Amino acid sequence: MQTKALLRNKLSHAGVDGILITDLLNVRYLTGFTGSSGYSIITDRDALFITDFRYEEQAKTEVKGYKVLIENSERTGEIKKYCDRSKIRTLGFEDHNVNFGFYKKLIKRKVRLKPLTNFIEQVRITKSKQELSYIHTAVKRAEAAFRKLQPFIRTGTTEKKLALKLEGLLKSEGCKMLPFEVIVASGPTSALPHAQPTERKLRGGDLLVIDWGGECEGYSSDMTRTILLKGRSIAKQKELYYNVLEAQKRAINKVKPGIEAADIDEAARSYIKKAGYDDSFGHGTGHGVGLAVHEKPVVSWRSREIIKENMVFTVEPGIYLPGFGGVRIEDMVVVKKSGADVMTSLPKKLKIIER
Amino acid sequence: MQTKALLRNKLSHAGVDGILITDLLNVRYLTGFTGSSGYSIITDRDALFITDFRYEEQAKTEVKGYKVLIENSERTGEIKKYCDRSKIRTLGFEDHNVNFGFYKKLIKRKVRLKPLTNFIEQVRITKSKQELSYIHTAVKRAEAAFRKLQPFIRTGTTEKKLALKLEGLLKSEGCKMLPFEVIVASGPTSALPHAQPTERKLRGGDLLVIDWGGECEGYSSDMTRTILLKGRSIAKQKELYYNVLEAQKRAINKVKPGIEAADIDEAARSYIKKAGYDDSFGHGTGHGVGLAVHEKPVVSWRSREIIKENMVFTVEPGIYLPGFGGVRIEDMVVVKKSGADVMTSLPKKLKIIER
Repeated sequence: MQTKALLRNKLSHAGVDGILITDLLNVRYLTGFTGSSGYSIITDRDALFITDFRYEEQAKTEVKGYKVLIENSERTGEIKKYCDRSKIRTLGFEDHNVNFGFYKKLIKRKVRLKPLTNFIEQVRITKSKQELSYIHTAVKRAEAAFRKLQPFIRTGTTEKKLALKLEGLLKSEGCKMLPFEVIVASGPTSALPHAQPTERKLRGGDLLVIDWGGECEGYSSDMTRTILLKGRSIAKQKELYYNVLEAQKRAINKVKPGIEAADIDEAARSYIKKAGYDDSFGHGTGHGVGLAVHEKPVVSWRSREIIKENMVFTVEPGIYLPGFGGVRIEDMVVVKKSGADVMTSLPKKLKIIER
Repeated sequence: MQTKALLRNKLSHAGVDGILITDLLNVRYLTGFTGSSGYSIITDRDALFITDFRYEEQAKTEVKGYKVLIENSERTGEIKKYCDRSKIRTLGFEDHNVNFGFYKKLIKRKVRLKPLTNFIEQVRITKSKQELSYIHTAVKRAEAAFRKLQPFIRTGTTEKKLALKLEGLLKSEGCKMLPFEVIVASGPTSALPHAQPTERKLRGGDLLVIDWGGECEGYSSDMTRTILLKGRSIAKQKELYYNVLEAQKRAINKVKPGIEAADIDEAARSYIKKAGYDDSFGHGTGHGVGLAVHEKPVVSWRSREIIKENMVFTVEPGIYLPGFGGVRIEDMVVVKKSGADVMTSLPKKLKIIER
C-alpha cells in the first residue's frame, strides 16, 4: 500500500507513534468506508478501522487493507485501551476535526495527544489516476445533466423549478449524492454568490447563474455557467460577462506547477479591478475539489499554497452588482506539467436564450 | 426576545461574560441565518451575527434581532478585537463544535475561553409552537410523498429507482433539502440499519425497509415503514414485523414527561428480547428531531435524559437478521402532558404488495 507507507514515514517525522483519523472523508479516502460513523488508527504496525454495530456489514464489504474492529463501549475508552495494548506513547490527532470536548475526554483518560494539521489533506491534495478518473466521470455527469436542462430554461419558469429539475437530472445521470444544493439565481438574486433558489420567475434581460456539481464514487465536480435571457437592454450584462470570461481565461493560463496559488487569483482579480469592478469580486478565485467539494488548495489572495502536478481545483471569478445581478464562470482544472488541463467542456460563449 | 433573556440568564450561571456560537444550526436557531458561514456572539448587552462578504445580502434579509457585522480579517482576530472592545473577560464557546485548531488560535491571541456543553442544545431540546408547526409540515410533506410512491413499489423495480423517485417526490412536496439520503433496502439488504440503495431488484418475499424524511423551514421529519412483497414463505417476515410493531407500541405508550429516556428504550428492547431477538436490535430506540435530524434527546439504554413536555423524537425499534432481512418501524412523537402525541399518521398494519 503506497499511501500507508507514505503516512508511516510522515508519522515518524511528526514525532508520534500513530494517528487517530476521525475526519470521515479522510477515513473514506484511506479505508473505502462510506458510512457516517467510524474512524481509523494507523501505527507502524497496525492499520485499523473501527466502527459500531450499525456499520458492521457495510464495513466488511467496503473496507480493504484495514483490520475492522467493532467497538462495544465508549469511543474514548476504546482508544485508550488500544493505546495501552499497543504501547502508543503519543497519538497524533486531526486538529481540524477533533472537537474540544472529545479532546478533553481523551486527556482525562490519560491518552498523550499531539495535534496534527492537514496530515491526510496534504496527501489528498494531489490526485491519483483512479481519483482523476472518478472526478472526470463526476464532471461528465454534471455536464450531461446540464445539457438536458436546456429546453427548460425559459422566461416564466422559476429558479426553484430549474434547480429541482437539474437535481433530478443529476441523480438520473448516476450521481448518488449532490455535492451541494444546486444554485439557480436570476436577475437581482444572481448578485448573491451563494443564493438559494427562490420562486422568482425568469424575465427578459435576466442574468441567470447556475452553479451545480456531479458525483462519482464520492468524488465531486463543481461548475458554474451564466446565461442571459434576451431583453431590451442587455449591454451591461454582456459587458460583465465578457469581463469575467477574460479574467477567468487569464487565471487558467497562469496555472502551472511551481507557481503560487495567490498568483492565479491575482491574474483574475487584477483584470476585474482594471475593468472597474474593484469591490465586486469578494470571494477567492477557486478551491480544490475531490472527496470534498471544497478542499485544498485554496486559490485566493490569502493562499500560500504552491501549485503541484495533479492538483484539481476550480477557477471561478465573478462580478456581483447588488440590485442588478451577477456573473460567475467556473471550470475545473487538473494541473499538468505544461499547465492547466481544463476538465469541464461546456461552451463559454455567452448563451442568449430567446424564449 | 424570550430566548435571548433565557440565554443571558444561563450566561451568568455559567460564569462567562458572553458566548461564541459557531454551530451553524445553533446560529440558525437563534438568528434565522441559513447560509453556511457565520457565527454569533451573545453578551449581556450585545447580540451579534458575524459573516463574510459572500453572505452580506442574505444576512440582511434573514437575520432579525441581531446586529449584523461583516468581517474583514481573520476570524480569530475579529473575535479578539470584539472581546477587547467590549471588555469580555471570559468568553464561553461550544465544546462540541470548536475544533482543537481554532481553540489554539484563540488561546494564542489571549482570548480567555471557557468550554460550554450543550448550552444552546438544552434550549433547543423542547420545541416552541412555531417549531412544532414546521415539524408538522415536514411530516405532512414526507407522508404525502410516500403515498405518491405507492404505485411504483413492485417486484422488478430497484432500490435505487424507488429512492430516486421518493427524493423527487419529497422535493415536489416543497422540501428544500432532504435531511438524509433516502434509505430503500430490500431482502437481505434490509438487515443493514443504514443501507444505501443498490441496483438490487425487488422480489417476492422481500422485506422492504424505507426510511425517509421531509423538511420545512430547515426543520426535519424522519420516519420508516417496512413493507412485505408477497411470496411463498412469508411467515417469518410477518412474525418479525408484528414483534417490532408491538415493541414500538410499548415504547410509545411509555412516553410521558418526567420519565427517563432509557425507560422508553427498555420498553421496546425488553419485548424484542423476550421474543427471542436479543442481539438483533443494535441501535437506540430513537433520537430527537428538529433543525437537525439527529439531535437531543437520545433515546437509548445509555441515555440519562429526562423526558420533558414539547420534546420531539423518533421511536424506531427494529430487528435485523443478517442474510435474511430486517424490519424497522419509525414514528415521530411530541411529548404532551398526558403522553406521546404521534405526529406521523401513515398506517402501520403490515402492507403486503401483490404486484
